[in-house]
Amino acid sequence: MALDKTIVDTLSAVSTATLTTILLKKGLRNVWLRGPKPLRPSSLRLVGPAFTLRFVPSREDLATPESWASPKSTRAAIEDMPDGCIAVVDAMGITDAGIFGDILCARMRKRGVTALVTDGVVRDVEGVLGTGLPVWCQGWAAPPSVAGLTFVNWQEPIGCGGVAVFPDDLIVADADGAVVVPKALVDEIVALGPEQERLENWVMGEIEKGVPLPGLYPANAETRARYEAEMRKAGHRSRATD
Amino acid sequence: MALDKTIVDTLSAVSTATLTTILLKKGLRNVWLRGPKPLRPSSLRLVGPAFTLRFVPSREDLATPESWASPKSTRAAIEDMPDGCIAVVDAMGITDAGIFGDILCARMRKRGVTALVTDGVVRDVEGVLGTGLPVWCQGWAAPPSVAGLTFVNWQEPIGCGGVAVFPDDLIVADADGAVVVPKALVDEIVALGPEQERLENWVMGEIEKGVPLPGLYPANAETRARYEAEMRKAGHRSRATD
Amino acid sequence: MALDKTIVDTLSAVSTATLTTILLKKGLRNVWLRGPKPLRPSSLRLVGPAFTLRFVPSREDLATPESWASPKSTRAAIEDMPDGCIAVVDAMGITDAGIFGDILCARMRKRGVTALVTDGVVRDVEGVLGTGLPVWCQGWAAPPSVAGLTFVNWQEPIGCGGVAVFPDDLIVADADGAVVVPKALVDEIVALGPEQERLENWVMGEIEKGVPLPGLYPANAETRARYEAEMRKAGHRSRATD
Amino acid sequence: MALDKTIVDTLSAVSTATLTTILLKKGLRNVWLRGPKPLRPSSLRLVGPAFTLRFVPSREDLATPESWASPKSTRAAIEDMPDGCIAVVDAMGITDAGIFGDILCARMRKRGVTALVTDGVVRDVEGVLGTGLPVWCQGWAAPPSVAGLTFVNWQEPIGCGGVAVFPDDLIVADADGAVVVPKALVDEIVALGPEQERLENWVMGEIEKGVPLPGLYPANAETRARYEAEMRKAGHRSRATD
Amino acid sequence: MALDKTIVDTLSAVSTATLTTILLKKGLRNVWLRGPKPLRPSSLRLVGPAFTLRFVPSREDLATPESWASPKSTRAAIEDMPDGCIAVVDAMGITDAGIFGDILCARMRKRGVTALVTDGVVRDVEGVLGTGLPVWCQGWAAPPSVAGLTFVNWQEPIGCGGVAVFPDDLIVADADGAVVVPKALVDEIVALGPEQERLENWVMGEIEKGVPLPGLYPANAETRARYEAEMRKAGHRSRATD
Amino acid sequence: MALDKTIVDTLSAVSTATLTTILLKKGLRNVWLRGPKPLRPSSLRLVGPAFTLRFVPSREDLATPESWASPKSTRAAIEDMPDGCIAVVDAMGITDAGIFGDILCARMRKRGVTALVTDGVVRDVEGVLGTGLPVWCQGWAAPPSVAGLTFVNWQEPIGCGGVAVFPDDLIVADADGAVVVPKALVDEIVALGPEQERLENWVMGEIEKGVPLPGLYPANAETRARYEAEMRKAGHRSRATD
Repeated sequence: MALDKTIVDTLSAVSTATLTTILLKKGLRNVWLRGPKPLRPSSLRLVGPAFTLRFVPSREDLATPESWASPKSTRAAIEDMPDGCIAVVDAMGITDAGIFGDILCARMRKRGVTALVTDGVVRDVEGVLGTGLPVWCQGWAAPPSVAGLTFVNWQEPIGCGGVAVFPDDLIVADADGAVVVPKALVDEIVALGPEQERLENWVMGEIEKGVPLPGLYPANAETRARYEAEMRKAGHRSRATD
Repeated sequence: MALDKTIVDTLSAVSTATLTTILLKKGLRNVWLRGPKPLRPSSLRLVGPAFTLRFVPSREDLATPESWASPKSTRAAIEDMPDGCIAVVDAMGITDAGIFGDILCARMRKRGVTALVTDGVVRDVEGVLGTGLPVWCQGWAAPPSVAGLTFVNWQEPIGCGGVAVFPDDLIVADADGAVVVPKALVDEIVALGPEQERLENWVMGEIEKGVPLPGLYPANAETRARYEAEMRKAGHRSRATD
Repeated sequence: MALDKTIVDTLSAVSTATLTTILLKKGLRNVWLRGPKPLRPSSLRLVGPAFTLRFVPSREDLATPESWASPKSTRAAIEDMPDGCIAVVDAMGITDAGIFGDILCARMRKRGVTALVTDGVVRDVEGVLGTGLPVWCQGWAAPPSVAGLTFVNWQEPIGCGGVAVFPDDLIVADADGAVVVPKALVDEIVALGPEQERLENWVMGEIEKGVPLPGLYPANAETRARYEAEMRKAGHRSRATD
Repeated sequence: MALDKTIVDTLSAVSTATLTTILLKKGLRNVWLRGPKPLRPSSLRLVGPAFTLRFVPSREDLATPESWASPKSTRAAIEDMPDGCIAVVDAMGITDAGIFGDILCARMRKRGVTALVTDGVVRDVEGVLGTGLPVWCQGWAAPPSVAGLTFVNWQEPIGCGGVAVFPDDLIVADADGAVVVPKALVDEIVALGPEQERLENWVMGEIEKGVPLPGLYPANAETRARYEAEMRKAGHRSRATD
Repeated sequence: MALDKTIVDTLSAVSTATLTTILLKKGLRNVWLRGPKPLRPSSLRLVGPAFTLRFVPSREDLATPESWASPKSTRAAIEDMPDGCIAVVDAMGITDAGIFGDILCARMRKRGVTALVTDGVVRDVEGVLGTGLPVWCQGWAAPPSVAGLTFVNWQEPIGCGGVAVFPDDLIVADADGAVVVPKALVDEIVALGPEQERLENWVMGEIEKGVPLPGLYPANAETRARYEAEMRKAGHRSRATD
Repeated sequence: MALDKTIVDTLSAVSTATLTTILLKKGLRNVWLRGPKPLRPSSLRLVGPAFTLRFVPSREDLATPESWASPKSTRAAIEDMPDGCIAVVDAMGITDAGIFGDILCARMRKRGVTALVTDGVVRDVEGVLGTGLPVWCQGWAAPPSVAGLTFVNWQEPIGCGGVAVFPDDLIVADADGAVVVPKALVDEIVALGPEQERLENWVMGEIEKGVPLPGLYPANAETRARYEAEMRKAGHRSRATD
């Protein structure tokens, strides 16, 4: 799925904190992946369609170095990743076997993958950082994936960090972690996100002026009227968010 | 996969404790599913090919009562289960949403399913016991599956209780829990299992006579000779197990 | 709060499994208390208004045997419990200090308390069973509450097993565990519960006749028409449940 | 250490719940082993000196079936256990590898071992129950110890269920689990235990008569005077316990 | 409670490591909050009276964006916080819903709150860091508090990180985390803390000179005499600490 | 055990990620310690023989400040550490009591200890960093070891982070954590490690040139021939690694 550039640009300006608030108002409470955090602290926010990978636990007769050459290998999955996707890997939250090291991350980077998101860990952390591929994960470990994991397939529905992710759902990841926006809700979220960000920025300004919280946040009718007046003056067209 | 009756009969006489010992000698240390225990204490040992089902976490836009009618539903999976199979369900170890209640278990029973094995829980425990379907699970909970789980597919590789299970691997379940015998190893295990049981029973007899452990268990050369002599007298053909 | 006898009688015939299904259709997914199970296996279903108690962690200067005589003691709370209530105790899920032993449970029994529900454990399990007080808990431990817990108050909002419970919410507890029905929803649930039970019982009968799942459960239009015809014949007035 | 028969007889009449209360008054809050419960529900209370065993995690080059014949084996430890001891096994809380099965438990029974206590699990649960050896553990699993554990030594200080146990500390185990009484405190506990049991039984009688909790439990001066008068009448010499 | 400036100044020079040692010598072993760490690494040590807030789990009928305007809201609690207090928030250790974001933290900062301490997490981590409010927490997450938490009250006894905290207990927080000093013990700790710090600094100097540990730390009589002589020379009045 | 300088030099150039791959090919899957990470991010790789220390849980009658002067104290263990060793401490994964603070770490540094590795935590984190002793641990906490731990012995087999460590096994620690190389396998690993590093570096170069993964990694016959030709040209003697 090639993603409309407008979607990427718009959502790159909406924090995952704001996205979860908007999705909760739509009834979706479980959209933030538990575990993945940026491997290197950064202010980056990245947006892309999910390309999913799935592991099951290791079994000594399956998860061997030899298996790396099987047709259902992580290597084959990586060669199938489209430019701009975000690879989302279900590692069942296992933190004592690294799903990928520097070599696979370098290849993903070469192929134009936007980011790697997993509820597991990577290995050879300095090598992975060296590749420049943005990674959201639970940390790192020395052992290879086969010490705890068997790769089984890609582009299937997965669970990652306690959240359901389907191929081509939208992923937004920033300092707070990674959020899934279900494909069917993308247009609605794109419409609501920027307005919510604008409102929250305005509230921060009011706080700086010393306005107390009651009536300000959430806004009562008087506050809302004041906000909308200021926005109109500033040339923005406000859009009700709840 | 219809399973040879000899395999079922032979393995019905080999405990899961013995199976894990034999599989460990073949290099497989991770074959016992963590979590599943018999729902009702019993001496039953059941054997059958795995029929796998897979859940991911719930998402409010997906895991609704309405979803029960979708083509990728647990209902469709159950109607696809062959006589004699053991349904193995990857519920990601979630214990606060029951994967099945009395209605689905009753239907599985009707269809000739041998047993249900899961790292999750069932719901309406008294109703499920009433159906007579043998169940190995982590317990029970009142909430429906959609409160925590979204069903996605069947007959895929899964993880269950930290163990990889592939469709048509063999499952053996008894009081100690459930063990997977990888399909490719079944013949070998069928050949070794009964001899190992016979040896351990003989050792128990020696213990009863007051023989101390060193030299007896594991058996040294003298003990082994004595065992083999007795077995020959009893008409068994012994087979080295290590 | 004295509870209308009709409410108790009606909900005593509705399983907690059915209640969680109905509450989920109303948008409430988190109403089943994680942890509490019947201390002694039984088919009992009990209904009553919640009387809440709250513990915080122990602190050596506070949680002493002497504290048992303080005005904010569990003793004082018990003497305040009304006839027919269900005591719900927030023990923060701690399983290595028993909140109550035989003496306190015997006194609750004397005072007409319907049941004790907690995400913690009791102590002196044989003594507690001897009192005849129905208990839903996580098990039992020898140490006294002061080894891990400090009692602070009663009839406050609490968390119990990951669920919010407010004083006078309704509690229903059976073999599957304990469910909270928020006070404001009781009338609605009382109206819907029996019909849902009736429908599920009818479906079980169909399963017994060999009817396959698709179309039956959940019911399609044809099945629903057949069900309603049979119910009318049997003299029941059906009520749409979704 | 041969244990004075008077100690065994006296403590066999004092519940672990009472023991933890007395030890807490002496400043010991961490004496109840987290995890071990009777393998088969029973009213048995057993008392004996601790004979400790220690495992570390498994390593494929060490934890092999072959290792069972090493001089630092569980077999050698068992042959060293004195009559009347309670074997206390540090299995690091691991629940997916059984420390002992029927053969080792049968031999312990033969040697006069009073009980087995562990924060791990046993294997071949039906076989172990068949030996008649009383066992306190976390449950059972099919895999052999070598799948997760390497035995290293016996009669060393260990941790078991989060509690420090030294060789020859006293162990008391009943339905509530197992408690360690440090060797140096045994005489003091033997002196205080029976009186505390007597007091609690008297309080239960008062509760049955309908006496409310405040002033009764814990006893105020008036209650205590009444209790002591009744005890004197019954011919017991009371001993202050706090 | 306005806190005496001398107390703040004195304890600002005593590390939480030293405080836990002193409190342990007074019999308090459970005073360090498990979980809270500085959000941004820093050498800051802050001291203030606890202002407590309490959450229970979320319930869909309660934990809505609308609830933010209820009289029992976090907004109202914040407007009640006195200058110089340390807000201590019981979030039940939940790490997948942020208790506060940039707006609420900015307002706390405006009101002169010294620090925020919680066993939960914040949200919009970059925004929170931008406010300059010192925060000790378990990390951060994107979802709003209502996704997992319902706010119920303030200035009640709470548990935070497994420790009991009462309103107006003293909180000291530094790089090692946060420690509670029970109100009744503050004067005693203020008296002992600086001497303990002085002693440990002197010991570090001795280590640098190559003095071995035995006899030095803990100090035997000879070492102590030497230390006291040096302190007298330096004009300090030593005070026995054990 | 004085360690051959060649071993230290050789393994200082082999990452723990590479070591775990090589050990897995030898059948050892459980050699990476779960938990220990560098206390301060660094590119340091350190190598040394394990000097083991063992704690059990605390008991109020044992784990007192007074115990610091006992002959089985951490102080005595430290004075016994040889130059160049890596201290490996079994703290049972406990994270709320610091095993060592600045004083003990400073003394270890003075004695020439190469590094401290533990599955527990240190205390007074800034002080510990100030000593310059390289530390791999799970983090830090304010409370002293006696708040949760009792030291029992040194140079015994231990478990650390779920891995068995014997005295004089080799420890290699870098950014990815710490790995144990069993003493008996050291020579073999020293022979294989550098070649594996060389191969992986060459593969990274190929990735940079845009070579796709299939056939490259793992290398097929053609790739391997190409690699070996280049190495021969560069003057390296390749050594088969699987």
